[in-house]
Amino acid sequence: MSSRFISNMAPVIKKFDYLVLGGGSGGLASARRAAEFGIKAAVIEEGRWGGTCVNVGCVPKKVMFNTARHAELLHDHKGYGFDVEVKGFDWGRIKQTRDAYIKRLNGIYEANLEKSNVEKIVGHAKFTQDKCVEVAGQKYAADHIMIATGGRPFIPPIPGAEHGISSDGFFELEELPKKVVVVGAGYIAVELAGIFGALGADTSLLIRYDQVLRNFDSMISKAVTDNLEPGNVKLMRKTQISNVTKESDGTLTLETNSGVIDKVNCLLWAIGRVPNSDTIGLENIGVSVDAQRNIVVDEYQNTNVPGVYALGDVCGKALLTPVAIAAGRKLAHRLFDGKKDWMLDYSNIPTVVFSHPPVGTIGLTEEEAEKKYGKNQLKIYTANFVPMYYSVLEHKMRCNMKLICLLPDEKVIGLHMVGQGCDEMLQGFGVAIKMGATKAQFDSCVAIHPTSSEELVTLR
Amino acid sequence: MSSRFISNMAPVIKKFDYLVLGGGSGGLASARRAAEFGIKAAVIEEGRWGGTCVNVGCVPKKVMFNTARHAELLHDHKGYGFDVEVKGFDWGRIKQTRDAYIKRLNGIYEANLEKSNVEKIVGHAKFTQDKCVEVAGQKYAADHIMIATGGRPFIPPIPGAEHGISSDGFFELEELPKKVVVVGAGYIAVELAGIFGALGADTSLLIRYDQVLRNFDSMISKAVTDNLEPGNVKLMRKTQISNVTKESDGTLTLETNSGVIDKVNCLLWAIGRVPNSDTIGLENIGVSVDAQRNIVVDEYQNTNVPGVYALGDVCGKALLTPVAIAAGRKLAHRLFDGKKDWMLDYSNIPTVVFSHPPVGTIGLTEEEAEKKYGKNQLKIYTANFVPMYYSVLEHKMRCNMKLICLLPDEKVIGLHMVGQGCDEMLQGFGVAIKMGATKAQFDSCVAIHPTSSEELVTLR
Repeated sequence: MSSRFISNMAPVIKKFDYLVLGGGSGGLASARRAAEFGIKAAVIEEGRWGGTCVNVGCVPKKVMFNTARHAELLHDHKGYGFDVEVKGFDWGRIKQTRDAYIKRLNGIYEANLEKSNVEKIVGHAKFTQDKCVEVAGQKYAADHIMIATGGRPFIPPIPGAEHGISSDGFFELEELPKKVVVVGAGYIAVELAGIFGALGADTSLLIRYDQVLRNFDSMISKAVTDNLEPGNVKLMRKTQISNVTKESDGTLTLETNSGVIDKVNCLLWAIGRVPNSDTIGLENIGVSVDAQRNIVVDEYQNTNVPGVYALGDVCGKALLTPVAIAAGRKLAHRLFDGKKDWMLDYSNIPTVVFSHPPVGTIGLTEEEAEKKYGKNQLKIYTANFVPMYYSVLEHKMRCNMKLICLLPDEKVIGLHMVGQGCDEMLQGFGVAIKMGATKAQFDSCVAIHPTSSEELVTLR
Repeated sequence: MSSRFISNMAPVIKKFDYLVLGGGSGGLASARRAAEFGIKAAVIEEGRWGGTCVNVGCVPKKVMFNTARHAELLHDHKGYGFDVEVKGFDWGRIKQTRDAYIKRLNGIYEANLEKSNVEKIVGHAKFTQDKCVEVAGQKYAADHIMIATGGRPFIPPIPGAEHGISSDGFFELEELPKKVVVVGAGYIAVELAGIFGALGADTSLLIRYDQVLRNFDSMISKAVTDNLEPGNVKLMRKTQISNVTKESDGTLTLETNSGVIDKVNCLLWAIGRVPNSDTIGLENIGVSVDAQRNIVVDEYQNTNVPGVYALGDVCGKALLTPVAIAAGRKLAHRLFDGKKDWMLDYSNIPTVVFSHPPVGTIGLTEEEAEKKYGKNQLKIYTANFVPMYYSVLEHKMRCNMKLICLLPDEKVIGLHMVGQGCDEMLQGFGVAIKMGATKAQFDSCVAIHPTSSEELVTLR
């Protein structure tokens, strides 16, 4: 009724109960959960709904992992009795279908917000000095403001680095590049190099040291490193790029400490991610960040500023969609549902890496456990076998498993595995380990035969 | 030294500490475990080492399931961008490789017995009235005798039934039959019909009632029944065969209550199994059997005759390899390792059916839980979704999940699922459920994204 008066006045601050910066996994989950409690919530997003996970992360990555799996399976048909001629692979086709799928998901996310009565605000959010958030000239305020702006890939400050792409760019590629160089030793580098390699690109992975996944358990690090070459990924150890030149034919020439790599059609940086904490005006309200610009929060996701919270990748800890979702929901329950002490327990978070074959891991690595408890307080069980799937095939991809148990009662404090099926295998063991399972409790469950998972309840 | 004297005397009874009838999963596991404790053990086997599982069960079945999976995957290549021409399928090739694999396993089993210092006795075993066991004219005695002679497929007493084969015969087929009729509604019928169908045989499944897997949770029974036709298996409900005729061209004509089925190249009976308890002279020592001739045992695997034990399929309960193995090992520990109260807990045994897609199940069905606790003591959680794998494909195979929780603390007393990956997904949840997990404990484990298994820790 009073809108024509308001329009002539100084901009009115729009008030919400709960204002969320970032429409990714954590922000959306938290706002929607809050809205269930009758809270007036809004989410601010400048890009596509769903954030990294849906648009340039987990989801399209998994589609491409499945695509790469198909490429691998083509090699196995013969051993299983099938005479198959492979006539070609159309990257464009899977990209198109994948993009359409992501677009559907964007729509579902948006529709879910509407169904949940969460207000959508489109644009770039920035804190103002009066502890409001400004988006496209409009100011918003709330008693509770949550920052879930996520992160972005890090591009190194070397000459010509901008000629490379990041994981974001991977999902924009319209065709499979002929010659690819992926830089990095973390899980994103491993996953994307594995996809390129399986699909037939001339793929090299450049790493600074000797192995990939160096902060994983040594068994995993070794197995995944060893599986790269059979997966058609050339590993170049102790190799760092110092200069990138774009040639007139469009290819890149990379200068490295171990020689020149030329005729590169795609250079992909996967050397880490940085938090989206530098353009949202944190300085205006004094939110603390650490040396890497991650927002500093306590175990309840509180920043140092009362009424301002942060979670997900912008905090730099356990950069995983379900972690952000779980933290976001817990926070909503804590703030608006009277669950005063709810918070996310960051211990024993199960994680999968979609390498070829995939990795599953939860709890302490052997190295961490030794450091924490001492070697003689541990009992380590391992398995190393060829899954039955490969029994009729010439090429074998072994499965490696490790249980780290704490004496005297052999509580399972770490479970690590690499092998076919480990991606779907881990979740249930995660529940058991979170419950404090001992080795004896693992073994008390009858094995399921023939599976790979049964090995985990029959280790000796 | 005295052998030339002995040979002229009355046959000498050979003595062991532990005598096992049957060199299948249960017998071998029990004898080998006993031998670890310095026990003089022997196993009697008339067929191939490894029993049903290795030779005509789990192992070759899983190889054929994997083969059928390849056939299914051929249809998915296009959606994932691959142009593939399928020129043929050579059943003979996979059979040959499979047979070679099984032969290797037979050898490994035999070698393991030797390594374990367990004596092998080859031939048919029969109890004599003096509580010895006779094999090929030689008598054996032991303080502890264990029966693990397993079971065999049941062939119905109808005219011409002998023209059909059983699951044993399935593994002897030298080529893929053109037209197949599988009879039965249990998991063996479902698995074998699924393999035939996926590999392109004209396959019909004849069942007595409306659905397959009728003693599974109703959700599973319905889902697996619904998945038959998309899996290229024609379901013929309420159909029973009354007569089988072998025609001059070698095909079979089947008379059923709903008409004649002719030109059948392969009729496969999968209507149940019977225990191998009828040819081993149980009557000579008075071992009790039930109406189905299953050997009656208590929870410690004791028969009614002191010093005589039985386990595995011959007891007719939970006909699963790992159950026999676990029961066999527990028994060895109880008899020879001083673990006086060790026995296998037959509750919460996880099981997988290798249907297309596979089934995973543990604990009570909803029907059983309602009967035991009453409907209003239960809270049921379900999920029904299209796994991400199918997001880019036209045909979809949904995943169905169900958690049955007992109020007030929502202890998980049943978990049932059908869907891609459920086979490797179940074991860990089995451990958690065996530990007494509640719904809240399921949910306290962070989800693993993107997997199907994560749905089980995020049900609402």
